[in-house]
Amino acid sequence: MYKIILIRHGQSQWNKENRFTGWVDVDLTEQGVSEAHTAGRSLREAGFTFDLAFTSLLKRAVRTLDIVLEELDEKGIEIRKSWRLNERHYGALTGLNKAETASEFGEKQVELWRRGYDTAIPPMKPDSQYFFANDSLYKDLDKKDIPLSENLKDVVTRVLPYWNNEIVPEIKSGKKIIIAASGNSLRALVKHLDNMSDTDIVGLNIPTGIPLVYELDADMKPISKHYLADEAVLEQAMETVKNQGKVK
Amino acid sequence: MYKIILIRHGQSQWNKENRFTGWVDVDLTEQGVSEAHTAGRSLREAGFTFDLAFTSLLKRAVRTLDIVLEELDEKGIEIRKSWRLNERHYGALTGLNKAETASEFGEKQVELWRRGYDTAIPPMKPDSQYFFANDSLYKDLDKKDIPLSENLKDVVTRVLPYWNNEIVPEIKSGKKIIIAASGNSLRALVKHLDNMSDTDIVGLNIPTGIPLVYELDADMKPISKHYLADEAVLEQAMETVKNQGKVK
Repeated sequence: MYKIILIRHGQSQWNKENRFTGWVDVDLTEQGVSEAHTAGRSLREAGFTFDLAFTSLLKRAVRTLDIVLEELDEKGIEIRKSWRLNERHYGALTGLNKAETASEFGEKQVELWRRGYDTAIPPMKPDSQYFFANDSLYKDLDKKDIPLSENLKDVVTRVLPYWNNEIVPEIKSGKKIIIAASGNSLRALVKHLDNMSDTDIVGLNIPTGIPLVYELDADMKPISKHYLADEAVLEQAMETVKNQGKVK
Repeated sequence: MYKIILIRHGQSQWNKENRFTGWVDVDLTEQGVSEAHTAGRSLREAGFTFDLAFTSLLKRAVRTLDIVLEELDEKGIEIRKSWRLNERHYGALTGLNKAETASEFGEKQVELWRRGYDTAIPPMKPDSQYFFANDSLYKDLDKKDIPLSENLKDVVTRVLPYWNNEIVPEIKSGKKIIIAASGNSLRALVKHLDNMSDTDIVGLNIPTGIPLVYELDADMKPISKHYLADEAVLEQAMETVKNQGKVK
């Protein structure tokens, strides 16, 4: 039996401003930093230790992991970063306010764009201020592999090879693993782990900065899962994520 | 022509308390954190960017690097950690106050222990509270490779293979490199780069938290080197390191 931890980064500046973030490399807010410290302390108090960490290329996830490892006094462990754990690329919606977008296009359209499993969203244009093809973070990627927009299905497609080829072998080798990533890269992973249907995943939200503990069997099938937080804290956090797409 | 940066971690708790630290995993002081921020800002203002970072397994070096990369807005780059970049293992001296040790054994003996290139120091005993053989940080190492004490020659012996096999190929591939490590692992590297004699290295001190810029030719021979700091700041920092072994 194996135990792994998934953790979504703490609140980011654009979580706070309720904007579609995607690949834009925004930082944590003070609250986000504080959430990361709390997560690290919860893990420490529950007796978790790690041998290896995986994270995205985005600073909100990397810094969350930095802080969690500080709280655990495990700054020496190996950290592997990959664009495959990045947040979903939000295409032309990147940077837009979620509530304003809802009042312009309707809550239903925004809910579809946010949560539709394979709904296409408008692609980012090359003249966008956020265009990533020349970003030094992605210079080791083939330009054609840099998406112009992604739905959750696209995220599953790029997360799963990383999970299967890079993460699972390390889990099976006995290493204790933590994965610090973003809402939709973790939803992709949870969909796979829990074998959820394309429709069931729509209603699943992952709160920021709360460790999610998975117990897995030898075939990487979940035996149990739970969040490491008080019920009240958790409910509040879930509600926050769920309401982001609504008109204010 | 290549350019690399070496940086010794900012002031640690035991730098401040003037104790022999070695492999003990003490944290940065507030001043150390502040030095790391200053270093990061100097690098940013001088226009440095990095593709890859190397550091030790010790949190004072890892956190210095974390902070430098935050200031540079480069949290996404790859970080590789190795025990080979750890501080020199101070054997039975670990934890002792440098000034007290000097008044007990004499300044000359302490100077020899601190700076003698191949002077043996008393080994750490298995019943030491600092004994590292069971430390989870080193569980991937063969137990027989974990030293009981090291002089600078021993440090050179373990740093050079890492430099030659892991770091140099990355420099030659065109990657821009920063190495965040400790006083003596960096002295070992500087001795090699500058082709210094076993006696010349004795007088060489490296201040905490100040970036050291090396320009290297195609054969990894230095074309130039300089610290990225005001002359006055630098002199003060150098003086601090030099005086640590003296009776107060």
